[in-house]
Amino acid sequence: MAAPERFQVGDTVLQSGMTLPGVTLSYRTHGVLNAARDNAVLVPTYYGGQHAQTEWLFAEGMALSPRDWFIIVPDMLGNGLSSSPSNTAAPFDGPRFPHVTLYDNVRLQHRLVTERFGIERLRLVAGWSMGAQQTYHWAALYPHMVAAIAPFCGSARTSRHNFLFLDGVKAALQADAAFRGGDYDAPPLVGLKAFSRVYAGWAFSQTFFREEIDLKVMGSGSIDGFVTGVMEPAFLARDANDLLAMLWSWQNADISANDLYGGDFDRALGAITARAIVLPGATDLYFPPEDNAYEVARMPNAELRPIPSIWGHCAGLGANPADTAFIDAALRELLAG
Amino acid sequence: MAAPERFQVGDTVLQSGMTLPGVTLSYRTHGVLNAARDNAVLVPTYYGGQHAQTEWLFAEGMALSPRDWFIIVPDMLGNGLSSSPSNTAAPFDGPRFPHVTLYDNVRLQHRLVTERFGIERLRLVAGWSMGAQQTYHWAALYPHMVAAIAPFCGSARTSRHNFLFLDGVKAALQADAAFRGGDYDAPPLVGLKAFSRVYAGWAFSQTFFREEIDLKVMGSGSIDGFVTGVMEPAFLARDANDLLAMLWSWQNADISANDLYGGDFDRALGAITARAIVLPGATDLYFPPEDNAYEVARMPNAELRPIPSIWGHCAGLGANPADTAFIDAALRELLAG
Repeated sequence: MAAPERFQVGDTVLQSGMTLPGVTLSYRTHGVLNAARDNAVLVPTYYGGQHAQTEWLFAEGMALSPRDWFIIVPDMLGNGLSSSPSNTAAPFDGPRFPHVTLYDNVRLQHRLVTERFGIERLRLVAGWSMGAQQTYHWAALYPHMVAAIAPFCGSARTSRHNFLFLDGVKAALQADAAFRGGDYDAPPLVGLKAFSRVYAGWAFSQTFFREEIDLKVMGSGSIDGFVTGVMEPAFLARDANDLLAMLWSWQNADISANDLYGGDFDRALGAITARAIVLPGATDLYFPPEDNAYEVARMPNAELRPIPSIWGHCAGLGANPADTAFIDAALRELLAG
Repeated sequence: MAAPERFQVGDTVLQSGMTLPGVTLSYRTHGVLNAARDNAVLVPTYYGGQHAQTEWLFAEGMALSPRDWFIIVPDMLGNGLSSSPSNTAAPFDGPRFPHVTLYDNVRLQHRLVTERFGIERLRLVAGWSMGAQQTYHWAALYPHMVAAIAPFCGSARTSRHNFLFLDGVKAALQADAAFRGGDYDAPPLVGLKAFSRVYAGWAFSQTFFREEIDLKVMGSGSIDGFVTGVMEPAFLARDANDLLAMLWSWQNADISANDLYGGDFDRALGAITARAIVLPGATDLYFPPEDNAYEVARMPNAELRPIPSIWGHCAGLGANPADTAFIDAALRELLAG
């Protein structure tokens, strides 16, 4: 796997007003930008994920074939590759890393797209979960630059229930005294494991476990094996402060929480002129379809198309072939249009 | 409020084979047992609840009027009133309290009903959540003693997903080093608060928070206010080891996990001859209606009647008048039959 590229943005004034020095945006590209610079697609990363974990979307024979498209995958701030608590120098290291919003993320991604690549219009922005949230931000903040979007298993604004779910996993992590307010010497393993175990109940659906997909497909052997074998590796691979930085971005995600829209969520949705296929997981427990239905009703060119899946939020993880095919078909449709 | 009665059972051989010395079953009764001893109703308690918290079901003008019925409310083992980690002497105190099952609970309740009151048949058993699980146990273990049941927001067997949700809240509590494996000097407050915050996301539905019922009806002021004002008082009122003892009973609830049925869940369901109205909360996140649908299809005399509520699991808490009226109507129907 190729190492990621690094876009050195330098000192950056964040939405909060704080200046974060020496900001780096990590990213990876797939395929070749054509001469007209009109074959670019952007796929933001998800919570706890890094660019390599989006690559299941880019296989040969799929809609996003690198033969046809120039695909940019920017790493989210806080994911350990772009500027993050774990890789930022004092005085902004660890728990002192400032709060960054998805607005901040997408503004930096915009600089990457325009300054480094000279791209004026993205053919598609698509992403899962927090990647979907960044997708919505792209379409609301730069409506004239985005031809189409496919947010899957994510929302334009984090719902109050979703916020509460996140507050729970955060509390589980911070209950470990070894976290030491973020100034830990070694990873707070007990807290990270509690975080993973709490998260596990939310990431898939009740029906997923009723039908024992964890046993039959994932081969975990038991509920405990599922937590230790599937969830813990995903989160223990990340730094605790990084997880909490991204969690803050998630909790506070809102396409209208900025000067453009002044908190008028309906107006921000109405500004999304991109052709949109919005793909909630039908059984997603924290990004349920109802939140997307509200959004789609206020977007001028959008269709709601729930993924008929029992994989819950993880319908968009790329692990279930039927779900992947469903998402891929929507991407193909948007790219053909 | 009257003090509870105490039924001194003495040394009790548990389902595990262990003998727990000096077992006490706490209970409260409402109304008067008639001469024929045929007006008895039993209402078991729920997770973290005590008998007083079921009293919303027994108001004048409701189906379970104490004018008409003799209502017995036995406290669940582990709830701090019946034998529990917090009130049992060494060597079975605190984390050394043995695992007890709902089978153990219902067998003790059976002794209370038959030995203390000489009751041969219960007109109705009804309960919420773990109270519903005990209700199912009554009907499966003593089919000839139970005329009717109304389990609401609970199941005959804890689902794998429900088990995982519980594993999460348990991990959040135990992530607090002050828990000290159950041998804490003072309550592990950080862990209990994390437990409460994780639990909060599960107890109500996504729609409950989308429609801001927490603000409009419960007056919590914010998500954080909801956690600290509603959830924490409920759980911080309990002992941590008590919470974990009941949690174990919940995780391992299964009406067929005993010598009568040898793990044959369908056979145990088929043995429930009581007239049953099974009332899941339509939006319950950990006792979803699908689990009850499976059960009802295998019960000879049962009807599935979801509570059309956005209160999630807490449709059965007695806090929302419409839900309470819906449950009460079912109880009235069963008691009239």
